[in-house]
Amino acid sequence: MKRPLILVSNDDGYDSPGIYTLVMSLRRIGEVFVVAPATQQSAVGHAITMQQPLRARPVRRGPKFTGWAVEGTPADSVKLGVSTLLERPPDLVVSGINHGMNTSINVIYSGTVSAATEGAILGIPAIAVSHASHSPDADLRAAAFVARNIASEVLKRGLPKGTLLNINVPDIPPEDIAGIAVTRQGRSTWDDGFETRTDPLGRSYYWLVGKYIWDEDITADDVALRNNMISVSPLHYNLTDEPLFDVMQSWKLGSLFRKHRSRRKRV
Amino acid sequence: MKRPLILVSNDDGYDSPGIYTLVMSLRRIGEVFVVAPATQQSAVGHAITMQQPLRARPVRRGPKFTGWAVEGTPADSVKLGVSTLLERPPDLVVSGINHGMNTSINVIYSGTVSAATEGAILGIPAIAVSHASHSPDADLRAAAFVARNIASEVLKRGLPKGTLLNINVPDIPPEDIAGIAVTRQGRSTWDDGFETRTDPLGRSYYWLVGKYIWDEDITADDVALRNNMISVSPLHYNLTDEPLFDVMQSWKLGSLFRKHRSRRKRV
Repeated sequence: MKRPLILVSNDDGYDSPGIYTLVMSLRRIGEVFVVAPATQQSAVGHAITMQQPLRARPVRRGPKFTGWAVEGTPADSVKLGVSTLLERPPDLVVSGINHGMNTSINVIYSGTVSAATEGAILGIPAIAVSHASHSPDADLRAAAFVARNIASEVLKRGLPKGTLLNINVPDIPPEDIAGIAVTRQGRSTWDDGFETRTDPLGRSYYWLVGKYIWDEDITADDVALRNNMISVSPLHYNLTDEPLFDVMQSWKLGSLFRKHRSRRKRV
Repeated sequence: MKRPLILVSNDDGYDSPGIYTLVMSLRRIGEVFVVAPATQQSAVGHAITMQQPLRARPVRRGPKFTGWAVEGTPADSVKLGVSTLLERPPDLVVSGINHGMNTSINVIYSGTVSAATEGAILGIPAIAVSHASHSPDADLRAAAFVARNIASEVLKRGLPKGTLLNINVPDIPPEDIAGIAVTRQGRSTWDDGFETRTDPLGRSYYWLVGKYIWDEDITADDVALRNNMISVSPLHYNLTDEPLFDVMQSWKLGSLFRKHRSRRKRV
């Protein structure tokens, strides 16, 4: 039987510690090919490159880590990898291991999740993996183990079309991890602000600063992390708000438009 | 009574034709203040700037168009505008008028929608407005009229927390527009590929090319456009896939983790 082909990407760049650890772990269950940004791309959201062509160059990090570095975003990397750089479509896309958690509102901003979302958009089962520590020396073994085993589950079971899994691992010693929780994207938010500073030429500039306001729902992704659990959230990219869709049927927007027709010459 | 304060942003940059038309229209129902990217930011998704400080400078386009140009993304602009540049929180965020439609999968990539999403994240009712034509000379009057009237509705009715409206206007003569439809984010997709070319130095580069595969659902946003209707979709940013959340309860991920504990020394 052919070994599954796994495309690995991330948003920290192909040369980050996290993606290396992930590749070494996933090699035990399949053939692994890296297509990742050439440079750090955090908080790029689901950006893609359309106005410029992409460039890519082959990269190696030892004999067990081969692939391409793409001068573009995580979503670009997965798109180019699946359609052009890989010899056949991958069986799975795994993005990570991100240095820093991607939960609650951060899911929206996350380049790591974006790479997995692009896999799901292209019809390929996909997983994003993040570790809560920002340190390059973080102990990523539990994250690597869980990523590999959930990847095996997904290769065996598949995922519904248009879905992906978002895994987050708490920043605690592996022996303190209490288990794995299936969670929802939390509703924790940033209480955002900017710190205004003045440069030597007298011009203002603004640094993003924020305080994290925790969701209290026990099923929330980051609440699981706070409870020493690994969080696994099933995500999709269908943004329709169904309750509001129903409510808006009574808004009578059609009458608004008839007003437009009758007053058109004055618009 | 105080006039409502409306923050206007976009992803084409503060100097695009679309944002000017939008500002002129919205001035009839409120006080309008622009906080928009200094340069074109299409397809940036929900990127935010964290590693660098932001810069912003005051801009004017005649006596009726004042605000700030932000050296950052659409989401940056709204975040900085709401928290720092405006004297009080706005009553409404409106993003657009985008030159090009933002429907189906393009919603995910859209900087225009991202600016409105950031408004919703910050707890402010928000609207994104896009016109299907990419031409700078497109007739945006119907889009401006509908944006203003839906903005009035939203100021009157409010929107549920965490939701926004995504308006798309078809590229047809205004007199041919058949009405307004409340729609869902469609499931049309790009059949993506890249055209590989070789530069004068012999290196490959890749242009994104794609064919649009239409959703057939009559409630889909871009199907409404194809039927000569203006599309209004209620969106949120909760990405949890509830059906898969339920299914995954039977995956017994806990046992996977117990395996980890017992084998930990070998990981």
